[in-house]
Amino acid sequence: MKSFLDEDFLLHSETARALYHDYAARLPVVDFHTHLPPQEIAENRRFSSMTEIWLQGDHYKWRALRALGVDERYITGDATDWEKFEQWAKAVPWVVRNPLYHWTHLELQKPFVEKRLLSPQTARSIYDGCNALLQEKYSTQGLLEYYNVETVCTTDDPCDDLAYHIARRKTPGGARMLPTFRPDRALEIDRPNEFIAYVERLESVENVRIQHYEDFLSALLKRHDFFHTQGCRVADHGLQQFYQEEFSPTELRAVFAKARNRAPLTPEETRQFKMDALHQIARWNQAKGWVQQYHLGALRNNNTRQLNRLGRDSGYDSIGDFPQVAGLAHFLDRLEKEGALAKTIVYPINPSDFEAFATMMGNFHETGVPGKMQLGAAWWFLDQKDGIQKQLDALSNMGLLSQFVGMVADSRSFLSFSRHEYFRRVLCNVFGADVERGELPNDLPHLGNIVENICYHNPRRYFGF
Amino acid sequence: MKSFLDEDFLLHSETARALYHDYAARLPVVDFHTHLPPQEIAENRRFSSMTEIWLQGDHYKWRALRALGVDERYITGDATDWEKFEQWAKAVPWVVRNPLYHWTHLELQKPFVEKRLLSPQTARSIYDGCNALLQEKYSTQGLLEYYNVETVCTTDDPCDDLAYHIARRKTPGGARMLPTFRPDRALEIDRPNEFIAYVERLESVENVRIQHYEDFLSALLKRHDFFHTQGCRVADHGLQQFYQEEFSPTELRAVFAKARNRAPLTPEETRQFKMDALHQIARWNQAKGWVQQYHLGALRNNNTRQLNRLGRDSGYDSIGDFPQVAGLAHFLDRLEKEGALAKTIVYPINPSDFEAFATMMGNFHETGVPGKMQLGAAWWFLDQKDGIQKQLDALSNMGLLSQFVGMVADSRSFLSFSRHEYFRRVLCNVFGADVERGELPNDLPHLGNIVENICYHNPRRYFGF
Amino acid sequence: MKSFLDEDFLLHSETARALYHDYAARLPVVDFHTHLPPQEIAENRRFSSMTEIWLQGDHYKWRALRALGVDERYITGDATDWEKFEQWAKAVPWVVRNPLYHWTHLELQKPFVEKRLLSPQTARSIYDGCNALLQEKYSTQGLLEYYNVETVCTTDDPCDDLAYHIARRKTPGGARMLPTFRPDRALEIDRPNEFIAYVERLESVENVRIQHYEDFLSALLKRHDFFHTQGCRVADHGLQQFYQEEFSPTELRAVFAKARNRAPLTPEETRQFKMDALHQIARWNQAKGWVQQYHLGALRNNNTRQLNRLGRDSGYDSIGDFPQVAGLAHFLDRLEKEGALAKTIVYPINPSDFEAFATMMGNFHETGVPGKMQLGAAWWFLDQKDGIQKQLDALSNMGLLSQFVGMVADSRSFLSFSRHEYFRRVLCNVFGADVERGELPNDLPHLGNIVENICYHNPRRYFGF
Repeated sequence: MKSFLDEDFLLHSETARALYHDYAARLPVVDFHTHLPPQEIAENRRFSSMTEIWLQGDHYKWRALRALGVDERYITGDATDWEKFEQWAKAVPWVVRNPLYHWTHLELQKPFVEKRLLSPQTARSIYDGCNALLQEKYSTQGLLEYYNVETVCTTDDPCDDLAYHIARRKTPGGARMLPTFRPDRALEIDRPNEFIAYVERLESVENVRIQHYEDFLSALLKRHDFFHTQGCRVADHGLQQFYQEEFSPTELRAVFAKARNRAPLTPEETRQFKMDALHQIARWNQAKGWVQQYHLGALRNNNTRQLNRLGRDSGYDSIGDFPQVAGLAHFLDRLEKEGALAKTIVYPINPSDFEAFATMMGNFHETGVPGKMQLGAAWWFLDQKDGIQKQLDALSNMGLLSQFVGMVADSRSFLSFSRHEYFRRVLCNVFGADVERGELPNDLPHLGNIVENICYHNPRRYFGF
Repeated sequence: MKSFLDEDFLLHSETARALYHDYAARLPVVDFHTHLPPQEIAENRRFSSMTEIWLQGDHYKWRALRALGVDERYITGDATDWEKFEQWAKAVPWVVRNPLYHWTHLELQKPFVEKRLLSPQTARSIYDGCNALLQEKYSTQGLLEYYNVETVCTTDDPCDDLAYHIARRKTPGGARMLPTFRPDRALEIDRPNEFIAYVERLESVENVRIQHYEDFLSALLKRHDFFHTQGCRVADHGLQQFYQEEFSPTELRAVFAKARNRAPLTPEETRQFKMDALHQIARWNQAKGWVQQYHLGALRNNNTRQLNRLGRDSGYDSIGDFPQVAGLAHFLDRLEKEGALAKTIVYPINPSDFEAFATMMGNFHETGVPGKMQLGAAWWFLDQKDGIQKQLDALSNMGLLSQFVGMVADSRSFLSFSRHEYFRRVLCNVFGADVERGELPNDLPHLGNIVENICYHNPRRYFGF
Repeated sequence: MKSFLDEDFLLHSETARALYHDYAARLPVVDFHTHLPPQEIAENRRFSSMTEIWLQGDHYKWRALRALGVDERYITGDATDWEKFEQWAKAVPWVVRNPLYHWTHLELQKPFVEKRLLSPQTARSIYDGCNALLQEKYSTQGLLEYYNVETVCTTDDPCDDLAYHIARRKTPGGARMLPTFRPDRALEIDRPNEFIAYVERLESVENVRIQHYEDFLSALLKRHDFFHTQGCRVADHGLQQFYQEEFSPTELRAVFAKARNRAPLTPEETRQFKMDALHQIARWNQAKGWVQQYHLGALRNNNTRQLNRLGRDSGYDSIGDFPQVAGLAHFLDRLEKEGALAKTIVYPINPSDFEAFATMMGNFHETGVPGKMQLGAAWWFLDQKDGIQKQLDALSNMGLLSQFVGMVADSRSFLSFSRHEYFRRVLCNVFGADVERGELPNDLPHLGNIVENICYHNPRRYFGF
């Protein structure tokens, strides 16, 4: 019987252990998709407690606490930091088999050198110990250094002035921080008030008048240009699905005009606008040599009562079951026909879609660009051992694992870089199991090379970081 | 090599064996969802043969026999009990890897102490031996006792007078039998003749006149009230999917009036009626503190020829692939907004839906009600080792396994309580494997506690039994 | 640690090894679905190089090369055979975990007795060695003999004159070659020019005038009759999905008339035509005692640019996510109601559909025809270890594995018969693992019998070969 979470955690063969310890473990992290706040990195924030860094903003933990019937006061409410931590400590023994159980103890072990299990008995002592280390060593930049982060991408609204990215660049050393162009809000034409407000913000940021659809695109493109000057090389989009919608420039003009005048749009008009805007942005991405990412399939904000209380991204989102394939094909093919298809990563949220997505990406590769089209790493609800394995298996069977650009933390927490370690262990274990079973040759240097590529060299090359 | 079906069946690690034998095995069964006939329990039916208890009404076995090309005479026809049993014995060696192979031999081993494999060679002797025990010991109540059943819920039409439940309560001792409110027939407005007949039956049972939709609801609510007085604490529904339909009280009134006058309904009208009726019933469930169950996604009665010959539930049903998520979200959120969402268990029939359903349930938990929203146990076609494991893994990854209310036999057969044993073995094996691999701490008392909760204490607390 | 690809490849237990070596390995191959060119079999083609037999026409390898960014010149372009082979050799080390890695080395090992791994270092020597054997021994018929192929079905257009099948029959000895009636092109009414051309070809082949839908069907039926006289006993169809479409003979007449006059059809009209034509053909299949196959769910030709350059079947196809179940039920039930449902094999392309399809097939079995309705072997993108296992598990859980008609190469390559070996190993391993874990009795003769049936006797009996 193996001990829990020892140094060979998740490594169930000699080959797996060799691949991890001799190849994967020491490599820097290139994390090309996170939701970390640029300000906190630029200002090297220090956290006053584990609650601040660990529980605030972590909707995974919130969901677990809610499933246990814990009062919202201890989750997003006005309880003290210690009270909230105590509730989490009380919850942890009951989250066994949920990825939170592994994340929790992995994040305590590294960087906090805390090997005890979190429970009501150990809560106080662990809390105090970790808090001390947060004060002493683990500011945001201290953590980036601890986790050996070389490059980290944040996720930013096109209207953002990227002031913190600019500031960060002025301080030498440490992890490089780059922005990501994420125009989701700019595309929410089905939310009239928010959309108008967004357009007005865009007008003010770029100091232009936005009357027509062309003006809108032109202003957005200026932001795209600006992001490029600030080192941005990645766009990102979250959407339910791509639609196979037919439309003309005239129709789009009319749709935008309606929205600009607060007239309600039909669902079809909304789809037309979104599909065209995504298409236009994708063309810019290709023109500038960026990578574009699409996070597909989530159904968000399912609990209206809590949406009204807590706002978005508070733990009320779901895996959707939308039809994905025909729309995705249509979107990619339209770009390909124009010679305007950028490097693309798609992340499905429903594990039933891994295989279909993996085969679709294989239809749009390009001479001279190895691994141009990528099935992204297991994401959100799928970012756990089973999900990671499913993604690796689907990619292996339907595409080329060796060209994979690997893991992203996709997190709001500075402690989530531990997920790279988690991913690397699962990856090495997958290769190791194949070798042990005689399903791959026992060629450690070659497999080690592939592991190194996936963990580090592939993303660096792919993004040009 | 392990022997087939020995005492450590399905238990592949030391931890798994300890969890099963020291924790799970001895616990009583709380089966909150079966299709057992109340009359047979109340009257303590004795079965004249294994065919009666084992083959009559078991559409799983019927499907296997049909796949082997066996004449319907030996399945649902007029062959003798022995002839039917003989055909099944002949079939059994060919159903290896189907769950029937395990169920068959598990049910022979317990309670019939029959360790031989069923085959043409052993058929006569096994038949006679089992028949003798059926006469001597294993009446329905004898079996409930043998299987250590503490509470069993039947599945009952709202028009049912629950006479057998009332009678059963008058006899002390033995398993408690409780009804379940299952109004599927009351909602089949798309089958005009059956629907009118149902409405008339409802009129007669409640001695009211049902003219308008309000009358219909009011009569149905009276049955709901009556069921409550008879100890019912659970509602259950079988449906293909929830729809995101918009409608008004006026429209509903008109739809009902049309149906009452045998005018054909549009599909949209049918959906409106079903969605509203389900919504109204859900409100009653919440008002009375009941649990509501939704069995989602089956496509039934696919073979019209056999439907006309044999009626429903004869083994011609399928796993469907309907879109589920948006409709389910809509249904739950509408109740949540009204503060009228009862404890809810959903059972998807398509294994591709486990993950999406599990995440959806996590959006609607309630302070003070641990595990309020449940992903139900693997059901029907999924009630087998792989399906059970998939459900456990999806629930673990997307929710909290520790809060799970566990297994139901969901069966028409008194021998199907063995499925609780089967489930418990798979459950213990899942935990055991994690411990052996160092993916869970080796804390037997704690994991044993969780296992005991899932197998017994969670459902008792959840239903208030 | 097992060596890579040794004689016990994929066989991870004593029972698995016994089942494979003592039962499965020696059986002839009955391959009832391939895309091998009849001419090459009839004329006993000799290949001038490994490139000809291995890389030309293999869109699996093309996709891998494109994913690596290789220039199309080396894939489908005008590079020399050696240059193309060299590119493939360079690619192979990077396709680890893709089924190509196993296929490649399995096909080198057998029949070429080449145990080295393919790489740039070994490329030249392997190329020369294999080429020599292709000259000496491995003509097409030499390969059929090597792989112990007893019967092979090709896939043929109804307008084909089957000249090569006729010619082949005149030469005694060797594998029997039979045609398959695959009328996909005849049904593509949504491609006006191609459809008209097809109808004209049909007119010319049968020397009839095709004015009305009835004429069309009648001409097609004559081809069906002709195929029957040439030993054809199998029909095959590739389609995205079955539709639940209502229509009348009058409507169909009108639809056909429109298409005949090159008037554009609505999507609904296209669906009506396709569903009825498939229905009519299915009736013919049943009348003649044929088996019908449906390959469902692929989304083809996703890359328009490459479609225009390279034509169809060049590696730009995908797994789709179309709704399948209701349409399939409708199609099968309509035939069943008419007593016109032939033996049927369905092959879903999306692994998420295995379970639903398996249950659907179980609704339409027939007395006296064991295993009449089949879930086909894992196909195309799913024809790999994980896919094969998923198909076997779904079939086992939802149907009867013992009645399975087993594997098909479904390939354009004469070296792909090695996939039967691959499948047999996976199959034996699945049974072996169950026995080792005590989940099946250790009854080698019985399990060996089942393995032999699946690998050989079941398909022979099912097709009447």
